[in-house]
Amino acid sequence: MFDVSKIRTVEDFPKQGVKFFDITTVLNDAESFQELFQELLEKARTLQPDVITALEARGYIFAPALALALHIPFVPLRKKGKLPYKTFSEQYELEYGYETIEIHQDAMKPQQRVLICDDILATGGTAAAAAKLVQRFSPQNINFLFLMELSFLHGRKKIAEYGVESLIMVK
Amino acid sequence: MFDVSKIRTVEDFPKQGVKFFDITTVLNDAESFQELFQELLEKARTLQPDVITALEARGYIFAPALALALHIPFVPLRKKGKLPYKTFSEQYELEYGYETIEIHQDAMKPQQRVLICDDILATGGTAAAAAKLVQRFSPQNINFLFLMELSFLHGRKKIAEYGVESLIMVK
Repeated sequence: MFDVSKIRTVEDFPKQGVKFFDITTVLNDAESFQELFQELLEKARTLQPDVITALEARGYIFAPALALALHIPFVPLRKKGKLPYKTFSEQYELEYGYETIEIHQDAMKPQQRVLICDDILATGGTAAAAAKLVQRFSPQNINFLFLMELSFLHGRKKIAEYGVESLIMVK
Repeated sequence: MFDVSKIRTVEDFPKQGVKFFDITTVLNDAESFQELFQELLEKARTLQPDVITALEARGYIFAPALALALHIPFVPLRKKGKLPYKTFSEQYELEYGYETIEIHQDAMKPQQRVLICDDILATGGTAAAAAKLVQRFSPQNINFLFLMELSFLHGRKKIAEYGVESLIMVK
């Protein structure tokens, strides 16, 4: 069983008043890293995805390893201008300004079961944008898998039409 | 055996005259993804690392999965301002301007065998900066593992004091 206390909390990062959940302390402990991965893998397996996708950079820490363990493809979502081939784009609002994420136009087939992984569900803006990109491919279903969910930010509301699994719920 | 033709080449990306090697086509083919990963894992295993590190974002596609397979820790190197705890920094030159990468000050112990993974060895500037960050911890040794090496850019010269393994050599 994964020990949540292995996650370091850093106060006032990235700004005053915010408590940051730092998973590098988990990744740095081989045993905890394995345990956390195995728990994510169990959740992922029950969702029976055909393909896994994730957003750079922290989303890539677990998602490709999950895809390898399940013998399915991994599709990287990237920030604007990073993917070399034809892309679909989705803009979303941040606290100050906008961010654009992209997916290759040949990244998925219709009617796939798609699992979107990320480390943290906060306000849900990024997650909702990722789902919109995946919707371009007419998937059979979309599920989300998060390591942590900051439930007090109500991010789940922004992706209410999809399945959402979180390993650790922070209230 | 991994089929190199699965890597898509995109002309004139990110700029005119550059041929970009796009591994998303490999990640999107479950069989090729497995084969490529297994070949990287074999190389990584022979180097007997105590810890694996990589730079965001593409470096994270294989490195954490390698660390999980070898039951060792993964240490993320990140761009400036992304790591929440105390960091060491290293600035390096790009074609236009500078980039700074960081590592947590408690990321490694002295006398470890450190494997630095990345997808592509080009001019070697990023790789050399990563090695400098790792040197702060007085490692027993540093080895590099790349998926592809663009040997015509002579990046190997910038990291000549370390072991360098590349799966695919592009001349």
